[in-house]
Amino acid sequence: MKTIKDKDFLSFSDRDRVRFINSLSGFKSVNLIGTQNLEGKTNLSIISSAFHLGASPALMGFVIRPDSVPRDTLNNLRETKLCTMNHVNEEILERAHQTSARYPEDISEFEACQLTTQYIDEIQAPFVEESKIKFSLELVREQLIPENGTHLIITKIKSVHLLDGCFHEDGRVDIAKAGSISVAGLDTYYTSKEIGRLSYAKPDVDPRWI
Amino acid sequence: MKTIKDKDFLSFSDRDRVRFINSLSGFKSVNLIGTQNLEGKTNLSIISSAFHLGASPALMGFVIRPDSVPRDTLNNLRETKLCTMNHVNEEILERAHQTSARYPEDISEFEACQLTTQYIDEIQAPFVEESKIKFSLELVREQLIPENGTHLIITKIKSVHLLDGCFHEDGRVDIAKAGSISVAGLDTYYTSKEIGRLSYAKPDVDPRWI
Repeated sequence: MKTIKDKDFLSFSDRDRVRFINSLSGFKSVNLIGTQNLEGKTNLSIISSAFHLGASPALMGFVIRPDSVPRDTLNNLRETKLCTMNHVNEEILERAHQTSARYPEDISEFEACQLTTQYIDEIQAPFVEESKIKFSLELVREQLIPENGTHLIITKIKSVHLLDGCFHEDGRVDIAKAGSISVAGLDTYYTSKEIGRLSYAKPDVDPRWI
Repeated sequence: MKTIKDKDFLSFSDRDRVRFINSLSGFKSVNLIGTQNLEGKTNLSIISSAFHLGASPALMGFVIRPDSVPRDTLNNLRETKLCTMNHVNEEILERAHQTSARYPEDISEFEACQLTTQYIDEIQAPFVEESKIKFSLELVREQLIPENGTHLIITKIKSVHLLDGCFHEDGRVDIAKAGSISVAGLDTYYTSKEIGRLSYAKPDVDPRWI
């Protein structure tokens, strides 16, 4: 076992420390956030910080770091109170990763990275057509984390759009079947292989594979 | 493509809606939170909501749902301002899952689920000996999400303890090598296979595998 204390990783180079700390939470989801401003100018940015906040109401959280992700996402969210979240699959991984480049504000990452805008029903935010699990989110609240200036975004899930055959009648979604990937740290991507499902845990009953 | 609107999933049974909404963010990390009260009584609970909040300072967030995870974790955190986070690996998956059973307050999940407490240096919170990547966290702030009564916990990383050979000199941590797993929805667990690393994205330069 190797021990690395805070005074040790505080002395890492900035890049090494970012790689290190980003690796610690474990495997992370990879999603593209689609937004547009009131004039319809679109934006797309990749995030790995989506987290489940609750099912009733259906809440999703994510983090926007003003120093790394273009502020366009945050500005558009403030203007329209809407965004889309789109799972990244292996087929679009390179293009999705490329949305993290610092494009000028007047460039849409959809065009620059060759991903296709998709509009569903009356939702005034662009989905990624190539994504196989995607949903629209309404802004509930944003909250500044004073320690580092990041913005915690709390949203409500309004509609879900997913590949036929990924949805089970009991509510489960087969995200591996949709080709969804995960990331560790900043840049190392993974596919997933199912181990199995474990039964609902009760005291004095051993968990079993179902 | 199948569309499920909010009025549709609001009409699901509670259990189905929980399964559905929990599946949407994508693959999630699986961690055990170790705490103890001021008398040294230990507690262990499994979470899938850890998220990276920043590298400088090194911040980690997670969510505690008072209706599902024993309140012991939150009470201990309030008392001691300390917890540990321990990656779950395939070897301890069944025991880790079992910590989600509703044990009475006087039962430690360490004992009930046959996981081993480990104390490192002077840190007054129990690690899971069987975990290969673990770290100690100091409470920065807790915040109530008024929409559903969940608690957003913001912590600072104080020390990291990991298997020799998982740490790269450039800061990266090979979490797949440590056997860390991921989860989709409530109960479906996965191992991960590396696709590769992508280079830092710059406008007008195609991403390449490194």
